[in-house]
Amino acid sequence: MKINHIEHIGIAVKSIEESRKFWEGVLGLTCYNIEEVPDQKVRTAFFMIGQTKIELLESTDPEGTIAKFIEKKGEGVHHIAYSVDDAVSALQEMDAKGVQLIDKTPRKGAEGLNIAFLHPRSTAGILTELCEHPKH
Amino acid sequence: MKINHIEHIGIAVKSIEESRKFWEGVLGLTCYNIEEVPDQKVRTAFFMIGQTKIELLESTDPEGTIAKFIEKKGEGVHHIAYSVDDAVSALQEMDAKGVQLIDKTPRKGAEGLNIAFLHPRSTAGILTELCEHPKH
Repeated sequence: MKINHIEHIGIAVKSIEESRKFWEGVLGLTCYNIEEVPDQKVRTAFFMIGQTKIELLESTDPEGTIAKFIEKKGEGVHHIAYSVDDAVSALQEMDAKGVQLIDKTPRKGAEGLNIAFLHPRSTAGILTELCEHPKH
Repeated sequence: MKINHIEHIGIAVKSIEESRKFWEGVLGLTCYNIEEVPDQKVRTAFFMIGQTKIELLESTDPEGTIAKFIEKKGEGVHHIAYSVDDAVSALQEMDAKGVQLIDKTPRKGAEGLNIAFLHPRSTAGILTELCEHPKH
């Protein structure tokens, strides 16, 4: 598996409206997309820094994963996502190496990417996502 | 202040030797540098992914910042560092915007960079570092 770059850093926030004041007002970045991902019970806001996106994640459901994460650990980095060319073969390689897969096959994530999560138990404690830009 | 790219993601780990098994053995990255930064009471290990380094941070002192962080929050992302062209003027801008500075002037960090930290209280809860590659 070849990792091309860090696709995004996912950050759990209580409120996108509140947090974007820092990313926009202080760091001077531009929020270029806000999207709801019903499947993951989140609303996401994206900022670009070089090759990497900052993805703010706000829960749309008090029982959602992000709400639970904030309850337990507070706001902060929720996961790191890596860009790979082929998510299916990357997952096969991870599986063969004994990594615990959250998604056994890729599914659609924000911005139309094919994504799959690896369990933090197998990834040095950091929730890890693999992302593939769909072929056209 | 213009951010060029994410310079590195700092990750607090109990043991570099233990954690590198994931970064090398699972993700297939290469550790290209291990360095001690006595000033910060850490040993660091670096991996490159596109424009961004993964910086593993292992405490060299049970009373050090990284040891305390792990005690409180467990292993995981400790800070995000951004590449800027001019750390002094970036700090002045942050100060003018009311950001709480941990370092009022840049100091030397790992790999010879000029670095300065911003307090997470002012940076949406995420410890934030500004890094400038020294001019030659």
